[in-house]
Amino acid sequence: MSSDESGKVSVRTVTYTAIEGLPLIRPGDNLGEIIVRGMAAQGLRFDSGDILVVCQKIVSKAEGRIRRLSEVQPSAFAQKFARQWQKDARVVELVLQESRRIVRMDHGLLIVETGPGWVCANAGIDESNLSSPDEVTLLPLDPDRSAQALRNEIRRLCGVDIAVIITDTFGRPWRVGLIDFCLGIAGMEPLLDLRGSRDLTGRELHHTVMAVADQIAAAAGLLMGKADGIPAVLVRGYQYRFGSGSAKALIREPGTDLFR
Amino acid sequence: MSSDESGKVSVRTVTYTAIEGLPLIRPGDNLGEIIVRGMAAQGLRFDSGDILVVCQKIVSKAEGRIRRLSEVQPSAFAQKFARQWQKDARVVELVLQESRRIVRMDHGLLIVETGPGWVCANAGIDESNLSSPDEVTLLPLDPDRSAQALRNEIRRLCGVDIAVIITDTFGRPWRVGLIDFCLGIAGMEPLLDLRGSRDLTGRELHHTVMAVADQIAAAAGLLMGKADGIPAVLVRGYQYRFGSGSAKALIREPGTDLFR
Repeated sequence: MSSDESGKVSVRTVTYTAIEGLPLIRPGDNLGEIIVRGMAAQGLRFDSGDILVVCQKIVSKAEGRIRRLSEVQPSAFAQKFARQWQKDARVVELVLQESRRIVRMDHGLLIVETGPGWVCANAGIDESNLSSPDEVTLLPLDPDRSAQALRNEIRRLCGVDIAVIITDTFGRPWRVGLIDFCLGIAGMEPLLDLRGSRDLTGRELHHTVMAVADQIAAAAGLLMGKADGIPAVLVRGYQYRFGSGSAKALIREPGTDLFR
Repeated sequence: MSSDESGKVSVRTVTYTAIEGLPLIRPGDNLGEIIVRGMAAQGLRFDSGDILVVCQKIVSKAEGRIRRLSEVQPSAFAQKFARQWQKDARVVELVLQESRRIVRMDHGLLIVETGPGWVCANAGIDESNLSSPDEVTLLPLDPDRSAQALRNEIRRLCGVDIAVIITDTFGRPWRVGLIDFCLGIAGMEPLLDLRGSRDLTGRELHHTVMAVADQIAAAAGLLMGKADGIPAVLVRGYQYRFGSGSAKALIREPGTDLFR
């Protein structure tokens, strides 16, 4: 809380606004244009310093990261696991193809490390909100690059500098339910390092590195509810640290991870 | 997005506002009164349907969940671990006292199951923002009950029904950095179960249970930054499901948890 010269009290508020009414995205679509147009229909436009949060699904679709299950030939290993747990062997096969290591394979769950190092169920392969039941999406090949492209496109269209976060929805160890996480980022640092700063009593904060990009992803996810078809959220009012950080900074080094 | 009768477009927006300028909390303090007074100083007051997010630290302090390290007698086991990793043996002893099981004990980290079943580092014991370096806080004994008490107090003071979420800041497997999680809840359901509903193309959503309370906790945490001393956040605009749910619904059954 601070007072300006007139004595008016200003409060720190962060707002998350659903960008609604977007069409189903197809390969080759220009996401930036579609989002800017959708926002205009809601009477919204980007300001410098905004954050645009976009779910992985529409990025994958725009980038053509779609596979047809009818074209997948499952391996014997995929077939065995699928039979045991009543899964679609072709989906299991795609999960294995997208993985570099299996972290856990039990209870019908496949928790894997993806190529870039994300640990998640089913390598992020998703079967919802696609135009055909034969289709699934894979994660974007390089979500940081996708975020940067979207950021550049917004700058071109609107002349403002924003940050972009690409999210996906994952389960967690120890806790029930899914939340959203940052998978790609552009224009801001994903971590806020408070080490060396002091608390209110002057005690040094030793261990406090906040995953701010994951906090924003989770907050935006609250508005995205899969059934509602809201794939993008505008975040306004958060004073972030400009930067060219990568979402890969959010991946814990396997050597220091007690749960790999 | 929807249009009212006048044709005006309404947008779905959720706002998070920092409640600032609160005093350091002491045992016995009436948190509800202090928060309502702090909000009034910012020109804010509760509306029905608001969510109040409060960090564990001030709840623990108000409830007197404070221990003096000088009064702790560490066991031989605590001393051994502390020596190996240059820890304070008295803090290690308190962590063991607050735990019912150790999940991982390595790299100087103690990941434990607390009495109620939360899995987190150091049993949630916290050394920051206390009036003496001899003091630490323990987690509230029953965070759901603490949330309910705060909800009742706000109803008594302001005559409105709100939901309350009590949060703590934890690390995560696989990912760098801390985010905030829901530890106690009152007045709303912590999970939003979308199973059985359909996506935009009519495909049934099989696995989608969203941990909405954790999403809100993470979002509020973004405003709480430990160094800033903001222990409470007002959330407005999220249409939640009223309910008498417990945050314990967020604890994954050990038998189905692949990472216990």
